[in-house]
Amino acid sequence: MYNTLFNQMKKQLRQLDTWLVAAAAHATERGFDADLYLGFRLAPDQFAFARQVQIACDTAKLAASRLTGKDAPKHEDNEKSLADLRGRITSVLEYLDSITEADLAGAASRVVSQPRWEGKTMTGANYFVEHAVPNFYFHLTTTYAILRHTGVKIGKRDYLGPLSFQG
Amino acid sequence: MYNTLFNQMKKQLRQLDTWLVAAAAHATERGFDADLYLGFRLAPDQFAFARQVQIACDTAKLAASRLTGKDAPKHEDNEKSLADLRGRITSVLEYLDSITEADLAGAASRVVSQPRWEGKTMTGANYFVEHAVPNFYFHLTTTYAILRHTGVKIGKRDYLGPLSFQG
Repeated sequence: MYNTLFNQMKKQLRQLDTWLVAAAAHATERGFDADLYLGFRLAPDQFAFARQVQIACDTAKLAASRLTGKDAPKHEDNEKSLADLRGRITSVLEYLDSITEADLAGAASRVVSQPRWEGKTMTGANYFVEHAVPNFYFHLTTTYAILRHTGVKIGKRDYLGPLSFQG
Repeated sequence: MYNTLFNQMKKQLRQLDTWLVAAAAHATERGFDADLYLGFRLAPDQFAFARQVQIACDTAKLAASRLTGKDAPKHEDNEKSLADLRGRITSVLEYLDSITEADLAGAASRVVSQPRWEGKTMTGANYFVEHAVPNFYFHLTTTYAILRHTGVKIGKRDYLGPLSFQG
């Protein structure tokens, strides 16, 4: 399950990268600074676009690290442009590419925690299914929603990417 | 994997139900008709709120049906109120509760298709990971985004629901 779902996360991050390209094209067409996107948000008290992309990346990265024990690259959350955000996606994809199925062999029974849980822990299995996967798709889809809300020409196929049809 | 992820989908649908309750409360507080929510959308060419909820429900329901061969309840897409949408969620949860781990034993190797694929097929495994799970979270999160955009007082904990901490 872990390897399959991480492969899907990688695919979704590659799709996310194409949305940022579409956002830049849309800004050029409409005549505004594409990097304004980083500050867009759907509600005053919801994270802005840049943070949504950062957390989508971090959720995949930290899940891989917590479920394998392999150190992940650090990111400073200092992206200033769509190009910077694309660089972060690339960095996370490179890290995820370094994770093998063997690395994930003991994932289900790992003990996972994070600072905001104040000492509480979850099994790797519960953490992945209840926290990492839902959060990953949450921040991915919120990013997509901000882009659609501002008129970027992306659609459902850009979200899902190519499907593995048979025959 | 299948049983675990369907259990998570059920949890997320129960969370979705709580968001609709929060939406109704918000409408009362602000003094507008709560059923206006059904027509809200984030972009002119994106599905409205009611359709987002319907597709989130259908994605879970149809995945369970396609991966088990067990007939799913039919829904007419004629919901007129938040209460009607809550009824649909309840109906899908009851159906999903009827699916056992044994029913899902052959899920990975099933041959899955749908009308819009024009005769093409996917394996059950690919369909679930590449199509059902991403679509489910897409429509769930888009529903959440519409609610947040209109000021409903829900937050990330309402999205994730209670986590299975140890000890």
